[in-house]
Amino acid sequence: MANKTEVNAEPGKQELFIIREFDAPRELVFRAYTDPDLYVQWVGPNDLTMTIDKWDCREGGSYKFTHERGGHKYAFFGVNHEVLAPERIIGTFEFDGLPERGHVIMGKTTFEELPGGRSRLTHQSVFFSVADRDGMVQSGMERGVSEGYDKLDLLLESMRSNSQTA
Amino acid sequence: MANKTEVNAEPGKQELFIIREFDAPRELVFRAYTDPDLYVQWVGPNDLTMTIDKWDCREGGSYKFTHERGGHKYAFFGVNHEVLAPERIIGTFEFDGLPERGHVIMGKTTFEELPGGRSRLTHQSVFFSVADRDGMVQSGMERGVSEGYDKLDLLLESMRSNSQTA
Repeated sequence: MANKTEVNAEPGKQELFIIREFDAPRELVFRAYTDPDLYVQWVGPNDLTMTIDKWDCREGGSYKFTHERGGHKYAFFGVNHEVLAPERIIGTFEFDGLPERGHVIMGKTTFEELPGGRSRLTHQSVFFSVADRDGMVQSGMERGVSEGYDKLDLLLESMRSNSQTA
Repeated sequence: MANKTEVNAEPGKQELFIIREFDAPRELVFRAYTDPDLYVQWVGPNDLTMTIDKWDCREGGSYKFTHERGGHKYAFFGVNHEVLAPERIIGTFEFDGLPERGHVIMGKTTFEELPGGRSRLTHQSVFFSVADRDGMVQSGMERGVSEGYDKLDLLLESMRSNSQTA
């Protein structure tokens, strides 16, 4: 049975949670989050092109990536506050397609071991306002996140096969 | 009449606000927030020594400073997501004196012009949990912030005198 992406956004709160299990150890999931050659292969919805413009996945490092669909470009950028392998990444996140800057999000992604070589990812985003949080939820984020994790499932499978034959 | 520091922390929310007016234009207040030679002179309560360990007040830059009192050291550190002179600073903030890492705060400090060469600072902190927010409020933060801004009043006064006599 396929793993499902769960998005929890309690009404009136300035946070949301994304929970997803993977049939792969957390070390591999963490690597797919931090290695740009892997990250570029899975993040975001199916129907767009992903480019990484900047990538320094260390504490204090910055990143920027661009999604392109039908000639329209959307960039996402931020800084990493903590990168603790293979357990946790904390950093900021901003979308350049809003009418103004300042609507920054702080994210904490936690990678947890499960029995049987599986793992659970829990992502928490906190926002400066409930309106910012609701805007994010209504942007179609859930589809993009879910499609991205389905691509990540396939990538993890090929990473596991490669490491077994290596 | 002296300017008062207002701290608003609504019960059950994962945010707090600090509001403070200054008898100085926002350009000077912004400079006192971003120039390490000025910042070191006013931040924190009266009864401790302040040292700046790292200071890169640009987008993507990191900072760390240490407070020392009676042989005990407390460090604060983070990364700057946005530094928009003289309007706004957005970044992360963490205190190294907690039992574990991960309790990171995202802050937005806004500098607003008021008539008569005065200005208003509004700082918003958002937290990963209400418990983190309540812990911060109960730590004696309000006294430290308020004493710091009283020192900043004096510093701004001398910055204004210096610029008038220069």
